[in-house]
Amino acid sequence: MDPEEFRRLGHRFVDWVADYRAGLDALPVGATVEPGWVRGQLAADLPERPRPLEELLAEVDRVVVPASAHWQHPGFFGYFPANASLTSLLGDLLSGGLGAQGMLWSTSPACTEVEQVLLDGLAAALGLGKEFTFDGGGGGSIQDSASSAVLVALLAALHRTSDGAWRETGTDGLERVYLTAETHSSLAKAARVAGLGAGAVRVVEPCAGSLAMSPDALAAAMAADVAAGLRPVLVCPTIGTTGTGAVDPVREIAQVAREHGAWVHVDAAWAGVAALCPEFRHLLDGVELVDSFCTDAHKWLLTAFDASMLWVRDGVALPAALSITPEYLRNAASESGEVVDYRDWQVPLGRRFRALKLWTVLHGLGLQGLRAHLRGHVALASELASWVRADPRFTLAVPPSLALVCLRVVGRDGTPDDSADDRATRAVLERVNAAGSALLTHTVVDGRYVIRVAIGSVATRRRHVEALWTALCEAADAVR
Amino acid sequence: MDPEEFRRLGHRFVDWVADYRAGLDALPVGATVEPGWVRGQLAADLPERPRPLEELLAEVDRVVVPASAHWQHPGFFGYFPANASLTSLLGDLLSGGLGAQGMLWSTSPACTEVEQVLLDGLAAALGLGKEFTFDGGGGGSIQDSASSAVLVALLAALHRTSDGAWRETGTDGLERVYLTAETHSSLAKAARVAGLGAGAVRVVEPCAGSLAMSPDALAAAMAADVAAGLRPVLVCPTIGTTGTGAVDPVREIAQVAREHGAWVHVDAAWAGVAALCPEFRHLLDGVELVDSFCTDAHKWLLTAFDASMLWVRDGVALPAALSITPEYLRNAASESGEVVDYRDWQVPLGRRFRALKLWTVLHGLGLQGLRAHLRGHVALASELASWVRADPRFTLAVPPSLALVCLRVVGRDGTPDDSADDRATRAVLERVNAAGSALLTHTVVDGRYVIRVAIGSVATRRRHVEALWTALCEAADAVR
Ligand SMILES: Cc1ncc(COP(=O)(O)O)c(C=O)c1O
Ligand SMILES: Cc1ncc(COP(=O)(O)O)c(C=O)c1O
Repeated sequence: MDPEEFRRLGHRFVDWVADYRAGLDALPVGATVEPGWVRGQLAADLPERPRPLEELLAEVDRVVVPASAHWQHPGFFGYFPANASLTSLLGDLLSGGLGAQGMLWSTSPACTEVEQVLLDGLAAALGLGKEFTFDGGGGGSIQDSASSAVLVALLAALHRTSDGAWRETGTDGLERVYLTAETHSSLAKAARVAGLGAGAVRVVEPCAGSLAMSPDALAAAMAADVAAGLRPVLVCPTIGTTGTGAVDPVREIAQVAREHGAWVHVDAAWAGVAALCPEFRHLLDGVELVDSFCTDAHKWLLTAFDASMLWVRDGVALPAALSITPEYLRNAASESGEVVDYRDWQVPLGRRFRALKLWTVLHGLGLQGLRAHLRGHVALASELASWVRADPRFTLAVPPSLALVCLRVVGRDGTPDDSADDRATRAVLERVNAAGSALLTHTVVDGRYVIRVAIGSVATRRRHVEALWTALCEAADAVR
Repeated sequence: MDPEEFRRLGHRFVDWVADYRAGLDALPVGATVEPGWVRGQLAADLPERPRPLEELLAEVDRVVVPASAHWQHPGFFGYFPANASLTSLLGDLLSGGLGAQGMLWSTSPACTEVEQVLLDGLAAALGLGKEFTFDGGGGGSIQDSASSAVLVALLAALHRTSDGAWRETGTDGLERVYLTAETHSSLAKAARVAGLGAGAVRVVEPCAGSLAMSPDALAAAMAADVAAGLRPVLVCPTIGTTGTGAVDPVREIAQVAREHGAWVHVDAAWAGVAALCPEFRHLLDGVELVDSFCTDAHKWLLTAFDASMLWVRDGVALPAALSITPEYLRNAASESGEVVDYRDWQVPLGRRFRALKLWTVLHGLGLQGLRAHLRGHVALASELASWVRADPRFTLAVPPSLALVCLRVVGRDGTPDDSADDRATRAVLERVNAAGSALLTHTVVDGRYVIRVAIGSVATRRRHVEALWTALCEAADAVR
């Protein structure tokens, strides 16, 4: 395809995206196809001859759109949002156009340094403190996901707590990592990937009456492990857990961890970006004491997947753990020690110019625009929570956290009957999802089935939250 | 940004990409900026207020373009190509537009099933055999990179060779993995990430007079390890090594590995796609005996990074090793066992709809178009190799492999003087790169400095290879 044909077709494809987004309101949010439907619709054999790309758009309309859950739909309240803002797509297009491979500084200096500048700037804007910037001896990087971020943090921790022996001899079976029952499963997965096994994972009890990690319980667990000859490697407090948005006490946890030399990685995948707003910055209390901090631009910061931001206090920790240099990657710039080679901050070798989509978002919205985006959703969540509080058919499972509201259905006569109420809650979720104007997902809190309403889709406005509330109330009336 | 503004700006950004690609020939391929130049050009503070996005394009022209190595430049012969074809960008745009998150089948059935269909179709087109398709009990997936592919293959191997104990107890220090000095560093990195340590990596000797792994040496190494109570976990033959394009004897290696129950992962990151052409399919001899096979669509198959294709013979091997299911990811489709949840095939949880860019390429070029792309580059490489053979100033370091030509400069008087010749070869590479119309990288073969010419950029035509040859000859005359 030559540039002129790309110009013509590119306009056509941009129009398809514009039309798709403009028409989302009219589509059901969820997909209703059966397993195998898509496979049945498509030819098994690949085409031998070139075919017009306009035809592909027709195939996408015929097969992909009806078989998609529409994550950018204003009625999408499931999981956490995955903001693929149209603004960010413009930057992603530039990234594809340049087609740079940023594994080394020398393979595309701009790809590396734009990322450094943006992550230094965002560290300041989030209030993370100079020590997490390149200028301050630390630094940030864009990972594909928070899952990969916690994995590389764990690898750096294994390297550090073994005084470097880990690179040569691997894990030794004495390592322990600490989390709570609410920690995202990506840490358990990282522990598995890193060869620690499930046995190395300590589930720390929460503080009484909350879901947050208890620093006392952590201190006791670490002390017992150390007494048993084991080695605390990493503790992972969460700011904004996936289930309910709970916040672990980072400051106290970091103080405990420090005594035992353990690495502290803060997983703020969803909630961390809220710290752009001064009124939510208290969520990050204690972060100046930790070793690494992760928050996803691809959840709630309007940047299309993949763009998970990871900052570390020690700018050489990741390269020390991860670097391996064969001959064909040697180059003068790397050997000068003056540059960052981001391949050494991640598992994959290759990397896209992901900073461009983040840059486009920062440029096109400014910090003001981003704050307005975040605040708008938090305000809608408080409104929804107030409606829940005032309604006898529902109850809040936990207090709302930023833009996440967790609720349950309450039985008609008010007498608590846990299993009947759980069935009703589940039935309400299923009804709302089946109706198609909203998509909800669930979690379990204290053994109870809970509906999560995660407000944050790029196009969600007040009227969509109102419509959701109406749908919830109608469903509750039908099932109670 | 509303859809109408996206339409307008999207056209603008598409035009930028078209203009950039159309103008590449006139730009120097490599970047000449000093470390820190980009950082010095950009404001440290992020913008408070929204700014027009046209302004961002001006910034990209001012700062990014001059500080980039242009991987899509027709004169790019470095590393391996990273084909970000304009066709594939159209598919990537759709992927961003849909903004789907394909972690589970249920979070976007189309995202999962289109990938299944394409990878089944490509398995057939590459001659991989039914056993690597979903219909045949295996299956393929798109990973971000070949580095991640070899990591997950290793994890599946650890799970299998420990009879599942690895998930609970982690690595036990008895695992061994086998490679050669030519194997890509991603396997050594994977072994480190997986907690095996460098000590678990056995470097198997090559066959006499070649760079290919010796099956006899492998058999001896495995037998010795087993006798010492160690456990062969994985062996990684390469089809098309990074340095020189060497091919390990997969069939014999697989036969040896089988005796010891080790997993065989074939790394054909660059060369594997050539098997779309019947005349190159012999490269894949023996692949029907292996456990997993990886080749990158983002190197030489016209699909923008990231799109590394990994097939496994046992369709449950990766989920068995990697699955962890917290409450908020439970859903009826997954529990039915009828669907594939690709999150269990990879380390990250989230995933983009990467199959769309691959689909666009397959649709827009057809297998015929892809074969023509590959054959064209191989033909250019043979021509270049014939010029090298006929020229007393140069010699081929190894026979050309597909579209990779490795050459050295030969001293004026023909008397071999290794270190003088190596200095001359290096000086030639530096001169050619400094001149700006081509970009070359190097490797070391048998201790000798070697220039790699990897033909394969999307826009490379005969005249660019001719120009490179002229530049090489002129540089050789200047330095010899
Ligand atoms: C708290 C938390 N951590 C980590 C993750 C994983 O995110 P990713 O898809 O970026 O790996 C999530 C996803 O919802 C999350 O909520
Ligand atoms: C043989 C081989 N394997 C693996 C890789 C790593 O590729 P990726 O960037 O997809 O991880 C390369 C990269 O050049 C390669 O040549």
